[in-house]
Order: sequence, then C-alpha cells, then structure tokens
Amino acid sequence: MINSCLGRHILAELYGCDSTVLNDRQQIEVIFVDAALKAGAEVREVAFHKFSPHGVSGVVVISESHLTIHTWPEYGYAAVDVFTCGDRVDPWVACDYIKEMLKAEHIFANELKRGFLDHTNAPKELQKIMNKKEEQKEK
Amino acid sequence: MINSCLGRHILAELYGCDSTVLNDRQQIEVIFVDAALKAGAEVREVAFHKFSPHGVSGVVVISESHLTIHTWPEYGYAAVDVFTCGDRVDPWVACDYIKEMLKAEHIFANELKRGFLDHTNAPKELQKIMNKKEEQKEK
Repeated sequence: MINSCLGRHILAELYGCDSTVLNDRQQIEVIFVDAALKAGAEVREVAFHKFSPHGVSGVVVISESHLTIHTWPEYGYAAVDVFTCGDRVDPWVACDYIKEMLKAEHIFANELKRGFLDHTNAPKELQKIMNKKEEQKEK
Repeated sequence: MINSCLGRHILAELYGCDSTVLNDRQQIEVIFVDAALKAGAEVREVAFHKFSPHGVSGVVVISESHLTIHTWPEYGYAAVDVFTCGDRVDPWVACDYIKEMLKAEHIFANELKRGFLDHTNAPKELQKIMNKKEEQKEK
C-alpha cells in the first residue's frame, strides 16, 4: 500500500493530425466525450473553446479525473492529457481512440503515476517512472 | 526555431494540504480562477465538480491552455496541473499561489515542455527535460 498511487496520467504529443478536425470545436468535443465513455469513464463536466483564427482547447471532467486537449491546426499538433484514477478505467483506451480520430501520424506518449500515498516516494518514483522505457510509447 | 516548443506544463503533487479547503468546491474554484489571473492568463471556461462524500475536480480553460485540480481531502493530497503556452504567462506564478492557498506542506513539481515544432525532438527532448534535476522542485 505504501507504494500505491491514486492516478495514472498519460501525456501525449500528437503530430501529423488532420488540421480540419483540429480546428472543429464540435467534432473534438464529441471525440473527447466518446473517448471518455469508451474507456468506461463517467462524464461530469464538458467545456470546449474555439480560438480565432484557429485552435481548440477543451476538457472533459470525469468522475475518474480528466481529459484535456489543446490544438494547433497550423502545425497539425495536439497536446492531449488523459488522467484517470481507480482501476476501472484504462486511460490508454481513450488515448488510442483520440489518436485514431485525430488521424495522428505520430504519437509520443508517457504514462506518469500521480498521488503516491507515501509522499516521500513521489519524487523518486516519478523520476523512475519517467525513465522507464516501456512506458514511453511511439506508435 | 527547430527546438522551439509551444507550451510549458507543470505537474505538481501537493501533500499535507488543508483538507477543509480541498473539499470546498467553491473555494477551490475561486483559488484557481485567481491563480490564472495572477499569472496573467485570460480565463475562457470554468468547470468544477464536487464529489460525494469528498473530493473536488475542476478545470480552468485559459487562452493559454489550462489549470486542473483533483483533490483527495482524506489524504490531504491534490494533483495540480498548470499548462501554459506563449511567453506572456508564467505557470509557476499560478502554481506557487495554489500551493500557498491550499496550505500544502510538501510540493513535488516538474515542468515539462510540450509541442516541439520538430516532432522528432519530442521523445528525446521530453526525456532530457524530465531528467533535468533543476526542473524538479521541492519546496
């Protein structure tokens, strides 16, 4: 229990995405709500915003934490976070679905553990996890 | 320009926080909006949720990206993210203010760079940054 953590947080860098999708607030909102539901999460709050001339930011707050996105259609890039707590929801299900729907050519994603119950483990465990090669995925 | 990145993302683990504050949705919402404004950010969307019997989750979407929090009052713990893009807003201003207002005894925080314009730099730069000791703060 001493090494238990409360959450799993995927930080994903998505490149070569479909710029039209990245600039469509409504479509991204649907993708993110669907991603949360596919992962088995319970949606609590949804807030998305379209910027002028381009770009979308948004979040889905779920009972199990959150999903966020910020898009730069001009670069075909999106910064995506999927943070879940508990054992019931797999954040990778949501991440993989988002990658597919944004038509990303490259994804660099790391999973970090959040909330070690013994806080003295936080810095060293975080560092160790950040260095674990198997947790850095390139698809 | 090839090594430029679009955003700065602070992941902060806050321990020993005031449990009463961590369980107060309204107070946390005010703290987070104030934190965004103090850092010079422009607030776009605000969505916070209170869980039963305890815990608050929420997000402030700013023009420059987002701030999020998830609290576990029973452990005195909060997972806080401050993600900003552009040079105008300093995410550490918001993070330091949040730490103060939650009365955190310990904070472990890392700043990650997001959105390298040359995507081939993303994995190795991310790894390098994650390993930079000076970017892991303990206060």
